[in-house]
Amino acid sequence: MNRMDRIPFDHLRETILRALINLGITGERAALSARLTAETDLDGIATHGIARLPRFAEMVRLGRVDPVATPHCTASCGALERWSGRLGPGNLAAHAAMARAMELAQQHGLGGVALADTTHWQRAGTYGWQAADAGFAAICWSNTLPNVPPWGAKTPAVGNNPLVIAIPRASGPIVLDMAMSQFSYGSLAAYRERNQPLPVAGGFDTDGNLTTDAAAIEASQRALPIGFWKGSGLAFALDVLGAMLAGGNATHNFAPDPLREAGQSQIFLAVSPAALATHNALGAIADDAVAFLHAAEPERPGQPARYPGERVLEARAENLRLGVPVTEAAWAAVQQLAS
Amino acid sequence: MNRMDRIPFDHLRETILRALINLGITGERAALSARLTAETDLDGIATHGIARLPRFAEMVRLGRVDPVATPHCTASCGALERWSGRLGPGNLAAHAAMARAMELAQQHGLGGVALADTTHWQRAGTYGWQAADAGFAAICWSNTLPNVPPWGAKTPAVGNNPLVIAIPRASGPIVLDMAMSQFSYGSLAAYRERNQPLPVAGGFDTDGNLTTDAAAIEASQRALPIGFWKGSGLAFALDVLGAMLAGGNATHNFAPDPLREAGQSQIFLAVSPAALATHNALGAIADDAVAFLHAAEPERPGQPARYPGERVLEARAENLRLGVPVTEAAWAAVQQLAS
Repeated sequence: MNRMDRIPFDHLRETILRALINLGITGERAALSARLTAETDLDGIATHGIARLPRFAEMVRLGRVDPVATPHCTASCGALERWSGRLGPGNLAAHAAMARAMELAQQHGLGGVALADTTHWQRAGTYGWQAADAGFAAICWSNTLPNVPPWGAKTPAVGNNPLVIAIPRASGPIVLDMAMSQFSYGSLAAYRERNQPLPVAGGFDTDGNLTTDAAAIEASQRALPIGFWKGSGLAFALDVLGAMLAGGNATHNFAPDPLREAGQSQIFLAVSPAALATHNALGAIADDAVAFLHAAEPERPGQPARYPGERVLEARAENLRLGVPVTEAAWAAVQQLAS
Repeated sequence: MNRMDRIPFDHLRETILRALINLGITGERAALSARLTAETDLDGIATHGIARLPRFAEMVRLGRVDPVATPHCTASCGALERWSGRLGPGNLAAHAAMARAMELAQQHGLGGVALADTTHWQRAGTYGWQAADAGFAAICWSNTLPNVPPWGAKTPAVGNNPLVIAIPRASGPIVLDMAMSQFSYGSLAAYRERNQPLPVAGGFDTDGNLTTDAAAIEASQRALPIGFWKGSGLAFALDVLGAMLAGGNATHNFAPDPLREAGQSQIFLAVSPAALATHNALGAIADDAVAFLHAAEPERPGQPARYPGERVLEARAENLRLGVPVTEAAWAAVQQLAS
């Protein structure tokens, strides 16, 4: 049912491109959006690549994403600008916002774009890699609809608001890309289908007990914020700060319906390469930090701790060589959209 | 043994002030440092107020904190400056850095100070309240010595790097102040002394099993990062980014000895009040977000979820009225330093 195929990267990208053109995105915008989506699967983040295209297509058809809308600046405050995504394709708006944050950082050392009224940016890490590959450090995050109960409550009231921290590094950027829930609902479904317990508790069952049973969490809809009360607070703070900077929607403004999740607020902060020390007396800061992490005694012999993004580079190299893994169902859906 | 007294706030502050003067801090610097420490206990954060003074005093005596050193700017890059704390008192350097970040934000919309070679800032949230009380939003963090094993390893290699997000709000700022470990060692000791299990797993025992037994975690020294692999990655990314911005030490540069934990790197980012939208069409963004959080169905009837900082305001009001709670041991130690 979820049999995997491997598709050459260029063929994947071109198929996505045809799908996007069919949806009304044109020219270089379609090419960029197709590349960002294809690279997500290439990097092994299957939950946020082509798997998202059917929902994106449905939201275009419903008029909730405007394929031709382009983001524009609505207010400027020195190193910080406020933009509106005008409900255009979220990955294009986010890419433009990070590019502008980098320009502002080039000029001011530090630059920020607060983007209101955008739509789902697909893979959060995309914009971290964008910055790090250009030599910039970056922090960015998005709010979402309410999909996680705050600590102490049983009904969803905070978003799983993904947060990205990106650090350039010659031998492989450090890119953290994490949502505020311990597991996404996509990940819970995958454990349930494989009939596997979660490696750690991922939420509560309907009796209010912590559980590693993915199906029980799907039934209760009580996914766990990372670090219990801590991730709950972090999700809340990121949401409110993002909405206030963007002058846009906060989590409480969204209906609990993924097909209506449009109008997000997102923040893009960039730091100029000129403001980043890569060396101290002891050597390259990031390289030494990675070496120190790798030197910690592993839980399983021969499997050292990894830095954020380390697995991505490995997956990318393997998938460029062997083809990008896609499920039969996801690939069939893209091909249908492209036909 | 840990009997509590309640001390009037002004008496607490004046006693701390005499202790700091005895340690060689002078004039307004001593007054500010005493106020910040006293306010930490006032706000109910007993682990990071006067409880830290004996270690601070010892580090002054050992020459690892220089009581008369003042922070200074070492490089400027527009909205972002690099400062050195010159190993002076950490709370004074952090307060000066946040004040400067706010000046830069006033000028550029967004402002940042990356502080190298500082010492323990005591309570992280102090600098969030400082910003929010002045109408600024802020993000700040510090690195620490390696005190948490990264996910997948058994020996400490990441810091518990506290992170602060502060948002101004007329009826009570939102101030998140969280370390990257699920429980601090101070907190683990308190559970052990009360012979209480932790409310959730806080680390591994010596056999590598997750446990709620505080003593078992103290024995293994394997405290848990929040969200398992997620907090481990977040701690690592904050450390490397902070050290690269400050051009200073990263976690791997610290010996695993709290009395040698000097030379930290810290980041202070501030956003101008002019760049913060407090209202949208639906009302005050932060007020509406708080109301939505409070409206989630509570786990325990009558006990709604709380926003970060909510408990602090309650503790502050109560402790101003009744006196600041201090343990006999901590209060005796301050009195001795003050005599």
